[in-house]
Amino acid sequence: MSLDSTWFTEPVDKTGTAFSLKLGPGRKLHEEQTPYQKIEIWDTATFGKLMTIDGCTMVSTFDNFLYHEMMSHPALNSHRDPKNVVVVGGGDCGTLREVLKHKGVKRATQVEIDERVTRLSEKYFPELCTANKDPRATLFFGDGIQWMKDAKPESIDVIIIDSTDPVGPAEGLFGLKFYRDCIKALRKDGLLVQQSESPLLHTELIREMHAAMRTAGFAQTHLVTFPQPVYPSGWWSASYARKTRGKLAARLAPAALKKLKTRYYNAETHRAAFAVPEFIKDALK
Amino acid sequence: MSLDSTWFTEPVDKTGTAFSLKLGPGRKLHEEQTPYQKIEIWDTATFGKLMTIDGCTMVSTFDNFLYHEMMSHPALNSHRDPKNVVVVGGGDCGTLREVLKHKGVKRATQVEIDERVTRLSEKYFPELCTANKDPRATLFFGDGIQWMKDAKPESIDVIIIDSTDPVGPAEGLFGLKFYRDCIKALRKDGLLVQQSESPLLHTELIREMHAAMRTAGFAQTHLVTFPQPVYPSGWWSASYARKTRGKLAARLAPAALKKLKTRYYNAETHRAAFAVPEFIKDALK
Repeated sequence: MSLDSTWFTEPVDKTGTAFSLKLGPGRKLHEEQTPYQKIEIWDTATFGKLMTIDGCTMVSTFDNFLYHEMMSHPALNSHRDPKNVVVVGGGDCGTLREVLKHKGVKRATQVEIDERVTRLSEKYFPELCTANKDPRATLFFGDGIQWMKDAKPESIDVIIIDSTDPVGPAEGLFGLKFYRDCIKALRKDGLLVQQSESPLLHTELIREMHAAMRTAGFAQTHLVTFPQPVYPSGWWSASYARKTRGKLAARLAPAALKKLKTRYYNAETHRAAFAVPEFIKDALK
Repeated sequence: MSLDSTWFTEPVDKTGTAFSLKLGPGRKLHEEQTPYQKIEIWDTATFGKLMTIDGCTMVSTFDNFLYHEMMSHPALNSHRDPKNVVVVGGGDCGTLREVLKHKGVKRATQVEIDERVTRLSEKYFPELCTANKDPRATLFFGDGIQWMKDAKPESIDVIIIDSTDPVGPAEGLFGLKFYRDCIKALRKDGLLVQQSESPLLHTELIREMHAAMRTAGFAQTHLVTFPQPVYPSGWWSASYARKTRGKLAARLAPAALKKLKTRYYNAETHRAAFAVPEFIKDALK
């Protein structure tokens, strides 16, 4: 059967898959073309509001907790003592909010190229923007690639690349040059974490990313996986690159975990996220 | 945008979600109405062949390894010494094949109500049926509910319910009466494992299932999760019920694991599957 216009559909030609959400009475709540991309906000029947960029699902009210918790907490809890955190992309502010749940973080900077993503998130996803006025937060609007080039050397503990897919404005965030600038900006035990698409559908991209990270000079890489229903295949990943060799997934103080107030993340799902499936081990050999 | 007839689409009204696969040149390879259900076989562009029952995705060539490995190995490796295993449903024979990879299993019986599922699997998914002629395998075609009622008391080590959704012919497999017959048929340290839908979309069903399992007399229950792209939300689960209290996820001999020749499953993903997300802990309290 075919789906009519009462559904939002994201077909991905390359993977031959499509994910759809039934629309609610509001249908399309907003649409605009920014200098960078087309942003749309949809009213869905069961997933709350949905933001899409250039036709690709970005964030839904219902399931974004999975992505935002898993892009931040396993990373921050894999670093000995993250004080200065930078989020590149992440304009919906959900990752920033999770980062700032960590009391030890003294400064969190969100570097988003498209200010309209953040302004629309403030309007349609206000629950993701509750930390925007935290005195530790800085919202910078501009090019993440240039920002990283200009960053003070050895000043950042954790860089989280919460970007769109590696096409369009985000393409440069998946390259050797950018990774080299990240290494320079990271402190000695610093960690880079980057969203790296579906483990099943984009295995080759993940392999290339890890190879580029190591070529750029990172000492070790690791894949972390988690469920994310609105993204292709419903299974998503983040790639970790550590500047020097060291243990990941090490710091899990029960009292600190309890205070995070999360819905997916806990000590169990933290450890689970670092499990590498057999076919990924083969691909990353 | 809408999807045309060059896609197979499974819309789920209740959850407001749909998953689609682009069809290949063969489009629909087969269609038949059996006494129980409508079975269709599709040629997809990127996922190989796809079997659907009453419009719901059952198994694809490309991603079934996730489901079949995770419905069998974590269960068998959570039992001290599984010798007699019964698969209820599972007519595509993929779970049976994985079960028989365990050398310690002396007997595996597949109880499928619809023989046509197996016959079509032999034709379109022959790689799933390679263990059907194993001398330890029995393929029984008939009603799983009646079979369990008639089963010899205390004779089975692991029961795996690899059924369709809890509507139509599979509905009775999710009920108190059936669970009581399973308890009777299981040996003292026996384990029941049942596919239990999406952790995110069917949390309430999972809660009800676990409550029914405990009401029926099972001493403990646990949720196991894994990715499964062709099923709603791309994230799936199995519910475990143990007849007497005891440790799950205990028996993981490295040499035995190596011999299984799996693509997703290994010691890491075994442990990861038992991690319970925070919102599931809350729901199952």
